Amino acid sequence: MAGNSYGTLYKVTTFGESHGEALGGIIDGCPSGIQLDFEAIEVEMSRRKPGQSAIVTQRKEPDAVQFLSGIFEGKTTGTPIGFIIPNTNQKSDDYSHIKDNYRPSHADYVYDQKYGFRDYRGGGRSSARETASRVVAGAIAKQMLPQIKINAYVSSVGPIHLDTPYQELDFSKIESNPVRCPDEKSAAVMEEYIRDIRKQGDTVGGVVSCVIQNVPVGLGEPVFDKLHAELGKAMLSINAVKGFEYGSGFSGSEMKGSEHNDLYNPDGTTKTNLSGGIQGGISNGMDIYFRVAFKPVATIMQTQDSLDNKGNITPMTGKGRHDPCVVPRAVPIVEAMAAIVLADFYLINKTY
Amino acid sequence: MAGNSYGTLYKVTTFGESHGEALGGIIDGCPSGIQLDFEAIEVEMSRRKPGQSAIVTQRKEPDAVQFLSGIFEGKTTGTPIGFIIPNTNQKSDDYSHIKDNYRPSHADYVYDQKYGFRDYRGGGRSSARETASRVVAGAIAKQMLPQIKINAYVSSVGPIHLDTPYQELDFSKIESNPVRCPDEKSAAVMEEYIRDIRKQGDTVGGVVSCVIQNVPVGLGEPVFDKLHAELGKAMLSINAVKGFEYGSGFSGSEMKGSEHNDLYNPDGTTKTNLSGGIQGGISNGMDIYFRVAFKPVATIMQTQDSLDNKGNITPMTGKGRHDPCVVPRAVPIVEAMAAIVLADFYLINKTY
Amino acid sequence: MAGNSYGTLYKVTTFGESHGEALGGIIDGCPSGIQLDFEAIEVEMSRRKPGQSAIVTQRKEPDAVQFLSGIFEGKTTGTPIGFIIPNTNQKSDDYSHIKDNYRPSHADYVYDQKYGFRDYRGGGRSSARETASRVVAGAIAKQMLPQIKINAYVSSVGPIHLDTPYQELDFSKIESNPVRCPDEKSAAVMEEYIRDIRKQGDTVGGVVSCVIQNVPVGLGEPVFDKLHAELGKAMLSINAVKGFEYGSGFSGSEMKGSEHNDLYNPDGTTKTNLSGGIQGGISNGMDIYFRVAFKPVATIMQTQDSLDNKGNITPMTGKGRHDPCVVPRAVPIVEAMAAIVLADFYLINKTY
Amino acid sequence: MAGNSYGTLYKVTTFGESHGEALGGIIDGCPSGIQLDFEAIEVEMSRRKPGQSAIVTQRKEPDAVQFLSGIFEGKTTGTPIGFIIPNTNQKSDDYSHIKDNYRPSHADYVYDQKYGFRDYRGGGRSSARETASRVVAGAIAKQMLPQIKINAYVSSVGPIHLDTPYQELDFSKIESNPVRCPDEKSAAVMEEYIRDIRKQGDTVGGVVSCVIQNVPVGLGEPVFDKLHAELGKAMLSINAVKGFEYGSGFSGSEMKGSEHNDLYNPDGTTKTNLSGGIQGGISNGMDIYFRVAFKPVATIMQTQDSLDNKGNITPMTGKGRHDPCVVPRAVPIVEAMAAIVLADFYLINKTY
Repeated sequence: MAGNSYGTLYKVTTFGESHGEALGGIIDGCPSGIQLDFEAIEVEMSRRKPGQSAIVTQRKEPDAVQFLSGIFEGKTTGTPIGFIIPNTNQKSDDYSHIKDNYRPSHADYVYDQKYGFRDYRGGGRSSARETASRVVAGAIAKQMLPQIKINAYVSSVGPIHLDTPYQELDFSKIESNPVRCPDEKSAAVMEEYIRDIRKQGDTVGGVVSCVIQNVPVGLGEPVFDKLHAELGKAMLSINAVKGFEYGSGFSGSEMKGSEHNDLYNPDGTTKTNLSGGIQGGISNGMDIYFRVAFKPVATIMQTQDSLDNKGNITPMTGKGRHDPCVVPRAVPIVEAMAAIVLADFYLINKTY
Repeated sequence: MAGNSYGTLYKVTTFGESHGEALGGIIDGCPSGIQLDFEAIEVEMSRRKPGQSAIVTQRKEPDAVQFLSGIFEGKTTGTPIGFIIPNTNQKSDDYSHIKDNYRPSHADYVYDQKYGFRDYRGGGRSSARETASRVVAGAIAKQMLPQIKINAYVSSVGPIHLDTPYQELDFSKIESNPVRCPDEKSAAVMEEYIRDIRKQGDTVGGVVSCVIQNVPVGLGEPVFDKLHAELGKAMLSINAVKGFEYGSGFSGSEMKGSEHNDLYNPDGTTKTNLSGGIQGGISNGMDIYFRVAFKPVATIMQTQDSLDNKGNITPMTGKGRHDPCVVPRAVPIVEAMAAIVLADFYLINKTY
Repeated sequence: MAGNSYGTLYKVTTFGESHGEALGGIIDGCPSGIQLDFEAIEVEMSRRKPGQSAIVTQRKEPDAVQFLSGIFEGKTTGTPIGFIIPNTNQKSDDYSHIKDNYRPSHADYVYDQKYGFRDYRGGGRSSARETASRVVAGAIAKQMLPQIKINAYVSSVGPIHLDTPYQELDFSKIESNPVRCPDEKSAAVMEEYIRDIRKQGDTVGGVVSCVIQNVPVGLGEPVFDKLHAELGKAMLSINAVKGFEYGSGFSGSEMKGSEHNDLYNPDGTTKTNLSGGIQGGISNGMDIYFRVAFKPVATIMQTQDSLDNKGNITPMTGKGRHDPCVVPRAVPIVEAMAAIVLADFYLINKTY
Repeated sequence: MAGNSYGTLYKVTTFGESHGEALGGIIDGCPSGIQLDFEAIEVEMSRRKPGQSAIVTQRKEPDAVQFLSGIFEGKTTGTPIGFIIPNTNQKSDDYSHIKDNYRPSHADYVYDQKYGFRDYRGGGRSSARETASRVVAGAIAKQMLPQIKINAYVSSVGPIHLDTPYQELDFSKIESNPVRCPDEKSAAVMEEYIRDIRKQGDTVGGVVSCVIQNVPVGLGEPVFDKLHAELGKAMLSINAVKGFEYGSGFSGSEMKGSEHNDLYNPDGTTKTNLSGGIQGGISNGMDIYFRVAFKPVATIMQTQDSLDNKGNITPMTGKGRHDPCVVPRAVPIVEAMAAIVLADFYLINKTY
């Protein structure tokens, strides 16, 4: 399948390993004539970047994007946009301990089994550093769809949940704290929890919620390429994601039809929105919202048994970089993938 | 996107409306030389069929599959397998009440908005009757992969949950009760609950769990076409699905890395399997398991407000057919889509 | 690749063997609201059908198309159009002589090598009968693009060439003779030649020329999916095709730039059109024209050596059906594939 | 369609304008474990490069490829191979004369019409410089398939034809002369002809022939993705190509079936090979051969009328660079595209 492309008409293809020369990608199908705001792209990149605050990893990833094609005098030309993000820190000595070792719940083992050998430095292609290219493609997709508002935020960290409905949240607060939780009280508790996890040399998972507003009616291609099916695939393709639900989600499975049905207003909007803005796989004009579950990062600063490539169990301790909770950094990635999915359907469904 | 195809090398394309002449599809890429067990295909079809028991809809759908190509002397030839499932009941008069009306939480409204008009009879293309074609394609995929065991079952109905780990269940009991729950006690409670819902003229959602065993290491194509991302998309494309999680799923987001990591045995298997048989998007040889959330069916036998195409709110009562809980019938559909996803990756990854 | 689909947004998938139950296909992505002219579809089907005149095979292929979905009250609904063409003559006894024999320059041998065995009746999937499904899909594509005029005709039969530029031909004469050559004198010579070939029990090849008019500027997707590259692929996928050239074609390779360049008129049209209506892979608004070379049909009524599946060379004589020159019947197939390619680009390039 | 990708399992995506920062591409799906010969890649690049001899353009294109990912310790890892080819000469002042002018038989006009504006420097995306990325991808495909021999050569330049059958040519002579014609006498005549054309400030077209040997039986996916249909598309996607024919090609259309049929030897090979190594769209193990027609390059050093974007006809003279015959430089590009097509089918058909 050569699985490094996403999309049909807004088609994103990425490349790059954690410690190779560079990451990058090609955005093929971006319409011509979009005046790009490069600063806005940099903002998205810096949101994803490690080392933003005391609660995330202090690794340095400058993430400077270089655009190589498809842009002329600041505007997209309709031809493919090639870009690279050079890796400034390519020294691999600090990954020598994993050269012959499979870390638990990492992809080391399956890559070796599937491909015969692997670029072991920093996780290689399976590193979440790969998502930097997605953020570039998503940032441009956002600029292609300025009328649509995409807001993701952290709605839970480990056992701490923000249960407030999104309608009652102030999205402008998302960037006001390092957890990217728009409810300041919850954010403080979450931050405290993450600091504690960090001290333990442990990691913790969480949930990112995402709300998409101002989507026109009609996006989505049943029966297989339903809008929520593509959103689900796009989210599940992000590193560490374990689950996806939209609208009423898993809790909707506990409800009765008489409770769950969204009754209409005369203008075609609905009084409730348990459908999550999508009916039959097609956007209905209401807000689209969904939740994405992230497992805790597998690299912990504690000693755990690993497997070497000769079949020996050997204790191993995580070194150097520690990302106790990756979920805040996942927020811009979720938004990027949502923007890419929407951009593709926009072009397919000709509502651009 | 012309969204009615799934897969790259095992490629399934379907067509058909609820009350058209016939449904059907084309399976392109099925390897040659598979001696088909047509009875096994019929069994899968009858599992999906309405009217199997007192707790499901009594609608008659004979679902007799006619194979038109790609099979010679009982064996697949490697050329596309065309098939049709004639609709024996095409009378549309009993759907006249929805001709100009949009039922709440159905796709009526979005189809009219997207396409300008619609085949309103029985939901047209958005009817779950469409899944009959998927079951045919899945039944053949299963026969292509006889070594792999796929078992889906109902793990919750409305508020009633079966929390027993799948390892402790006896999959041979799944078909022993109309709910398709392998735990007989839970099945009895669920059945009772559904009978009650039926009496209320209401519907209820539920969850289907699925376990896939004997999958070789190496299936899946990162970074976008990860095995679980494709499984997720395939499940989310089934009518009424609101969520998907695999392995530890949403509950994994509450855990610490030190709890969540699956430690290795010397042979490359893992002591625990919170990863759900997939690491970095690639199967690792452990059991794959996931859960699929279904909302309650929107058609209820109670009076609810609907919207007509002139913008009037009008009360409407569901007629005739009543499927109080569609989740047991979804079990073979979940298995079919899982088989299709696996068949595609088998061919792509050359382990067939 | 599962190579039985063509197109991205107007996506045609076909199935069916020469002597199976039925041929058929699915057209996915056809826009909604097109009032179909079923009679026009029948006309296209009858143009492709064998037995139309004394110079073609007398085999009976009734080719009645049954539409099964995607059409409601005579109009396309935007959902996939499924259709079948039942094979009324499925008796296979008259093909028993090729069961274990590979006919020269047929696909018998490669199908057996690739798939392990084959449906040997009448060529199975490799029979040109497969093109009936393409004609259905093309007839609908034509109706989707009523403003565009597609005219194909026979421009050579064996050594007899019609060298008149297409601008001087009267396309309304194409159907006036069994050769489908708009120049009546040439047609008479060609017909005579074919009659002679028929008497010899031999076959002969020829060339189909095609002219597409009223195409808007902008269709085509460089650098790989150039308009002429897709047209070329589509034509080369038709049975017996050996070559494709557009605009100046092979003769253009003998010219100088100063002769070949098409100078502009002030309105963007060009004084000459050696470019064939396409520059850089994108339509420029001028007439698109191309030529498609067909080899002589391999089945001849003479005795030739064949190979059996045990490695013996055995003489074999063609039986029953004799199509001395398939080229006139290829005319509607060329038009159909051209229409399918254009329909796909129309949707992709949003000029519909 | 976002037409800048080719292939399904060996998938090549390219980007880059003539005078942008860099060209480049991503090869997704290349199998792991191939020890790359970087020198061989450089050789292919230098074959394509302008300025190799007195008969081609003297433009400098250093074409140094930088690989950024997918390669570790000199071997492919199975992950996407990203690469760039920096443009060292980005000064655009010498293209100011075409900023507002549409050169005859260039893509300037259609790009402006399709995209609203364009990167006018040196043809932008429509420049043949784009093919440098194809040559990289083809060079790696060749190394993936070391057993297969691909030899292209110039078989005609303008009116001068080399009619010797390829079986009688010595492919080792191809690189012995600047025309890349393996027959030295013809090469000398062709070279003389090109020198004369150069003096006239004119250009001339030609034909590249290509022979592929040692291809296993079974590559190709009927009915649409036939081997020769994909080869044809790939060749037609190369700049300036006007026609493609394989095996007997257009001359086969003049033959009788009794002459054209390839009779079998007992081992399944054929006595003749008018089929060109492909039957029914599937390789039959015989040599594959085809011919590709190139028009003369549109940029000539003579004064010709052009159109400006206000609708005025203005005389224009080509400046600086003059490529009197691009056909010798097209030889490695034809080979590269052939290698890419074969690599893709190898992976799809699992014979790798």
